[in-house]
Amino acid sequence: MTKSDERSITYLDAGVDIDAAEETVARYREIARKTTRPEVLSGVGPFAGLFSLAKFRDPVVAASADGVGTKLLIAEAMGRYDSVGRDLVNHCANDILPTGAEPLFFMDYLATADLSQDARVEVVAGVGAACEELGIALLGGETADMPDIYPPGVFDLAGFIVGAVERDEMIDNSKLAAGDALIALPSTGMQTNGYSLVREVWAIGKGLGADHDREVLETQYEELGGTLGDALLAVHGCFVESLQPLLPRIHAIAHITGGGLPGNLSRIFEDDLAATVDPSTWEVPPLFELIQRTGNVAQGEMWRTFNMGAGLVVAVDAADAESVISSLPGAWQIGEVVPRSGDELLVQGLED
Amino acid sequence: MTKSDERSITYLDAGVDIDAAEETVARYREIARKTTRPEVLSGVGPFAGLFSLAKFRDPVVAASADGVGTKLLIAEAMGRYDSVGRDLVNHCANDILPTGAEPLFFMDYLATADLSQDARVEVVAGVGAACEELGIALLGGETADMPDIYPPGVFDLAGFIVGAVERDEMIDNSKLAAGDALIALPSTGMQTNGYSLVREVWAIGKGLGADHDREVLETQYEELGGTLGDALLAVHGCFVESLQPLLPRIHAIAHITGGGLPGNLSRIFEDDLAATVDPSTWEVPPLFELIQRTGNVAQGEMWRTFNMGAGLVVAVDAADAESVISSLPGAWQIGEVVPRSGDELLVQGLED
Repeated sequence: MTKSDERSITYLDAGVDIDAAEETVARYREIARKTTRPEVLSGVGPFAGLFSLAKFRDPVVAASADGVGTKLLIAEAMGRYDSVGRDLVNHCANDILPTGAEPLFFMDYLATADLSQDARVEVVAGVGAACEELGIALLGGETADMPDIYPPGVFDLAGFIVGAVERDEMIDNSKLAAGDALIALPSTGMQTNGYSLVREVWAIGKGLGADHDREVLETQYEELGGTLGDALLAVHGCFVESLQPLLPRIHAIAHITGGGLPGNLSRIFEDDLAATVDPSTWEVPPLFELIQRTGNVAQGEMWRTFNMGAGLVVAVDAADAESVISSLPGAWQIGEVVPRSGDELLVQGLED
Repeated sequence: MTKSDERSITYLDAGVDIDAAEETVARYREIARKTTRPEVLSGVGPFAGLFSLAKFRDPVVAASADGVGTKLLIAEAMGRYDSVGRDLVNHCANDILPTGAEPLFFMDYLATADLSQDARVEVVAGVGAACEELGIALLGGETADMPDIYPPGVFDLAGFIVGAVERDEMIDNSKLAAGDALIALPSTGMQTNGYSLVREVWAIGKGLGADHDREVLETQYEELGGTLGDALLAVHGCFVESLQPLLPRIHAIAHITGGGLPGNLSRIFEDDLAATVDPSTWEVPPLFELIQRTGNVAQGEMWRTFNMGAGLVVAVDAADAESVISSLPGAWQIGEVVPRSGDELLVQGLED
């Protein structure tokens, strides 16, 4: 039952290599250093990250936690570790954007049993690169060695973003009114939702072996203009930069994540409003049609699982719609806000 | 290669039960509701949590991300889901305490393939209970359905804490000086570090089966006054409440986590200071002696892996030591701050 007669047990025997982890942490620090901002108080508080909000008069902090979902298994099958960190940061940044907050800093949580130190650094480098692009600080994070929790080669990645907004500039959806135009911004692909369904369709990460998974992911599709794997790993689009100048004109924002248009658009409405969405206003990207055809997925299931090409939806005054659309590349009017009279669907037009 | 001829694929087939998840989210909301504070702006920003910092003049935000490590496997083996959330919150709260920050809000990340909805709620209820005790808001979180990433019955749990402190009240370790007394506060057990080593010692979570693991964990030890499992699952002690009134008198704080006393005490020293620790000032709790004896673990490995009974160490003026000790139950002087002359160890007295 015990091993006391056999040998002296070390942390390394137990699958935790502290020396290797320390070297990796030094490499993380280099990544984080490139993302620093004047508000970051460094050299203080070795157990926590510190960020000054001195520039805000009356700050409200906006925060969100998220993960990458099983998009990770696609990345692992393709041996690509540089993009999932970008997915994570962009997803989180989009999640605080609906409050009108400026994203300020990020923290990541990476957990694995045996991911190589180089791969760990590659993952965190992706997080750092997205932070740099957004101009936010990678303020800290945790890499957890979890022997016997994660299967070989598998890791999980989660993150946490903090932003801030002046209280009187917060988007609280109070300006939202019937007649408002709903404008969609194009997604880059699946963003970070629906991967478990897609993996079911092509049996990826289902124990059929690395060769099977790679073969499936390296298959070229004419309609995708490349491989399935490349289309599936397209980085989650970030809408912060394009929307920030428009925030004062925006009545509400819905980030289209798990639950699709019906699930997320419905989150912005109080009791008396609803939305109509007109699916004829855009062409669903070929990736989603390929998934639907290959997996024989019902139409309603598609709407509730995938973004179907709409990465984010904003509500603006109808009179402002044309001007907003012209300043957002690829944007289109997807529908409008309508009064709600009874117990009809909050999002109409996407019925099965 | 595909399944289009067989059947229509749904998200549920893929291991993601959206309806069940939504019911669980409603139960999470009840838990979070109990932790709310006046600064939480609810009903706004459905994609992010919002927290007002209006009461701060010149706020510096302190943040930390952490996990529970493989203490999770002990909890899973014992079928106990209520305590790991407390470990997580207390660990994170202790991590921002060294800055002098008041903890304000928390977010959790729970990831699993097949953990039952009831067990998920139990985990989050533990998070919520610790938040309530600390008086902080559970502002949001994410539960990720990750089929094919997590083995059956296994989950991961990570969290993020945010606090704030007035810039001129921040503990920046600048008052730390040679001659300061180092005062230790007792840990409750292993806190959340060293579990992979302990699992190696008793072969817990190593594929020998649930019966083996349970038998090991249910073994009574006289020196522990109970079972090994109960001793291993003792909740990570939280030092926020006891230390908050003393913060203005404290020069530096080290939370003793992974790396033990040598690894964490050394983090508070600038170039010219070091510490001596006198192991004869306390009796190492029986749990650590049992681990060392059973696993034949070298003394140095013990110091670097476990807290050995010291959950947190504070540095105060030597003249203030007696008064500080008398107001902290169980506290004792563990050593002192000394000048550093050359390249000696940052923490002396704990050599192998």
